[in-house]
Amino acid sequence: MASKSFYAIISGAGSGTGRAAAVRFAKAYPVVLLARKPESYNDIVDEIKQSGGLAIGITADATDENAVNAAFETIKKELPGSKLAAAIYNVNAGFSRKPFLELKREELDASLDAAPKGFFTFAQKTLPLLLESVTDSPHPPSLIITGATASVKGSALFGSFAAGKFALRALGQSLAREFGPKGVHVSHAIIDGGIDTPWGKGYTLNNGIAETYWHLHTQHRSAFTQEVDIRPYVEKF
Amino acid sequence: MASKSFYAIISGAGSGTGRAAAVRFAKAYPVVLLARKPESYNDIVDEIKQSGGLAIGITADATDENAVNAAFETIKKELPGSKLAAAIYNVNAGFSRKPFLELKREELDASLDAAPKGFFTFAQKTLPLLLESVTDSPHPPSLIITGATASVKGSALFGSFAAGKFALRALGQSLAREFGPKGVHVSHAIIDGGIDTPWGKGYTLNNGIAETYWHLHTQHRSAFTQEVDIRPYVEKF
Amino acid sequence: MASKSFYAIISGAGSGTGRAAAVRFAKAYPVVLLARKPESYNDIVDEIKQSGGLAIGITADATDENAVNAAFETIKKELPGSKLAAAIYNVNAGFSRKPFLELKREELDASLDAAPKGFFTFAQKTLPLLLESVTDSPHPPSLIITGATASVKGSALFGSFAAGKFALRALGQSLAREFGPKGVHVSHAIIDGGIDTPWGKGYTLNNGIAETYWHLHTQHRSAFTQEVDIRPYVEKF
Amino acid sequence: MASKSFYAIISGAGSGTGRAAAVRFAKAYPVVLLARKPESYNDIVDEIKQSGGLAIGITADATDENAVNAAFETIKKELPGSKLAAAIYNVNAGFSRKPFLELKREELDASLDAAPKGFFTFAQKTLPLLLESVTDSPHPPSLIITGATASVKGSALFGSFAAGKFALRALGQSLAREFGPKGVHVSHAIIDGGIDTPWGKGYTLNNGIAETYWHLHTQHRSAFTQEVDIRPYVEKF
Repeated sequence: MASKSFYAIISGAGSGTGRAAAVRFAKAYPVVLLARKPESYNDIVDEIKQSGGLAIGITADATDENAVNAAFETIKKELPGSKLAAAIYNVNAGFSRKPFLELKREELDASLDAAPKGFFTFAQKTLPLLLESVTDSPHPPSLIITGATASVKGSALFGSFAAGKFALRALGQSLAREFGPKGVHVSHAIIDGGIDTPWGKGYTLNNGIAETYWHLHTQHRSAFTQEVDIRPYVEKF
Repeated sequence: MASKSFYAIISGAGSGTGRAAAVRFAKAYPVVLLARKPESYNDIVDEIKQSGGLAIGITADATDENAVNAAFETIKKELPGSKLAAAIYNVNAGFSRKPFLELKREELDASLDAAPKGFFTFAQKTLPLLLESVTDSPHPPSLIITGATASVKGSALFGSFAAGKFALRALGQSLAREFGPKGVHVSHAIIDGGIDTPWGKGYTLNNGIAETYWHLHTQHRSAFTQEVDIRPYVEKF
Repeated sequence: MASKSFYAIISGAGSGTGRAAAVRFAKAYPVVLLARKPESYNDIVDEIKQSGGLAIGITADATDENAVNAAFETIKKELPGSKLAAAIYNVNAGFSRKPFLELKREELDASLDAAPKGFFTFAQKTLPLLLESVTDSPHPPSLIITGATASVKGSALFGSFAAGKFALRALGQSLAREFGPKGVHVSHAIIDGGIDTPWGKGYTLNNGIAETYWHLHTQHRSAFTQEVDIRPYVEKF
Repeated sequence: MASKSFYAIISGAGSGTGRAAAVRFAKAYPVVLLARKPESYNDIVDEIKQSGGLAIGITADATDENAVNAAFETIKKELPGSKLAAAIYNVNAGFSRKPFLELKREELDASLDAAPKGFFTFAQKTLPLLLESVTDSPHPPSLIITGATASVKGSALFGSFAAGKFALRALGQSLAREFGPKGVHVSHAIIDGGIDTPWGKGYTLNNGIAETYWHLHTQHRSAFTQEVDIRPYVEKF
């Protein structure tokens, strides 16, 4: 049975990983889904409700500070008195595969907006809330970040995407070191599984990722994981 | 209720991590504990039995190929028809902290015997058995390796210990790439938690490690983790 | 004797590393120094001229695309017919050491502007020029990037600085893979030496860095280095 | 003109990298070449002598402690009063590419003998000599280690080779941290260039590696490099 006094939030709920994480965390908490368009979360909100869970979709662009602020105001009204147990930053944008000299500066900007900048805003909103939950949340309050192979390897033609993902990982490492000792578990997952879609071969991968995210959230603070890789058994690495 | 048709084996069962892993896996499988001395496993075998589990202790030095072969002969007799679901290599030895010019060659040998050489023997015995379980084991057959900070960082005065741990990690990576596509999950855990003892501050850390090992074992093959770090929230890194 | 048909350019010439690199490369090429303020390069331009070298200082903020474009127009006029042999991106800005919840979004922006964004502009201007020099430059045309410990480790309280430096490294890796096969040598140096100043203990470190940058530039294309660390022998790591 | 009061030693002089390093260091020092068979060094000793240099070949298996001890006794007689300026460990052996379950334990042993064990003996003999040279050698006394891609990546089917190379890197890191502050420069080079032979495509790569080794040796102690990668510009990475 889900605790109503704590909730989870997922930014970037429109992707397969975001959807799977929402379903998994909804078994324990009301979940808030942030996405740029209602189409991205409507189905999954319905699915969670039909399974007896509680889910709220909020339209917000993770790279727009004001929209994110407004989202947290909405949460206060919709879930009065509820505290934050887990926050997942799962925003993927700014993906370009092209020769460097054909890249536009806007493409780099899009990657940096979606990764370090969007996460910065999300983390500044959620970390104070997670700190407030340290004493009484059912599991250590958690901030989980979705990374990719491009978080640790700058491949040819993927420079702008990797720039954002590397920067996101830097922030995650730094926050893990600063907030871990305060009882908030910050962890970063390197997903190595090709294109992430809600259908097709990504489906079981996403369920597997969601189970690992849940495991990260439930780790006792005597045994925190900062970084984990997740890939299908057939993926070459 | 534990499945009797599959068992788990833990080499290096005498340490806190080994004991905690044995207790955790015993909730699902009969467990075989390998250690150099009966004192290392007697208590834990009793504890598991009193909890309704099934545990077998076998005296064997992981660095002695004949002793390891004999251990697997014993297992065949003690658990007839049972198949291997999970194997954990948790042997720690060869730890020396001293100036390099004071190190004896025997100290390097001890580290290499306990880490890459002992693991090599263990992996050559267990991987064929794990492959046989791919089609019907309750979770993907798993080979889990206990590493340490010294697996990824060669600190001053810890050269011989790090040499063994680096080499062990190399084998783990290689086997993950070779056996993952065949359905066997090989993973390596970097434990960053200081001295590992069954008592004192290590106690909850070890339970946390054991939970994460169990999670690794239960990961669906669509979402395997090859490497994970585990440390107490207060540990500086 | 310096070749006049090829020149080198250093962005971020005001720091100790930038000055030392300018002096070293001026032994072989005319050097162009970019810095935000004339005070940052006036002395070093004079010093190079007095040693019989050729140096041009241009005021330009590396994060301002128009200013960088204007700088390259100036170079065309000042060094007509001269081709680019080496480009060094040595811009350091956006350094903040503070608790994450006290960071302003502007501080993250400053780090991203100075590191990935400024480098992106610099690389898009210099790579086409470096490609033109592949067939006839005295050494493989080179793009060298100054990194820091924060390029590979996100320490507590250094998140925004590390975000920029990680992203810069991602771009460097990606460009090395894309442009190396075309004959342009892209390399990244991790400087681990504390605060970089033109005076005091940084002085000999900077000369050493400059020698290593020159070595990177002169590496034959059969033996390119992509990444190198440089630190004083007393630095703990 | 070569200094006769200091010499360099290269263990594993029979490979292309060893030969190229010998020729490069012979421009500055008498060089001692260790190899298992005289055929491995006879030509190169002649070549160095014909160029006006001084070279001594000694037959010794790097994995045989007694043979290495005897080699250093020979050096004392052949180069009386000469001090050690640079030592290069370039031994490659134990290379096997095969499925793990077909590997013999002897193949792992060969890799560990050639890499960590042979280097351990070499380092214990050379580090005391290098320490004696700190005050007066022309460049910081240096211990340089030849690694490979397998030093940082455990690929499928390369487990035993990677185990040795990982362990060698661990020792190198540890010694850099211990002996750097004492003025001895320990560095590790990751060579990413396929099969290393004295002929064919490896030829220019080896000359390039030798130049980089010489640069490492001549780095001022204010700017030591611990690790460097070296690869042909066409190599995919």
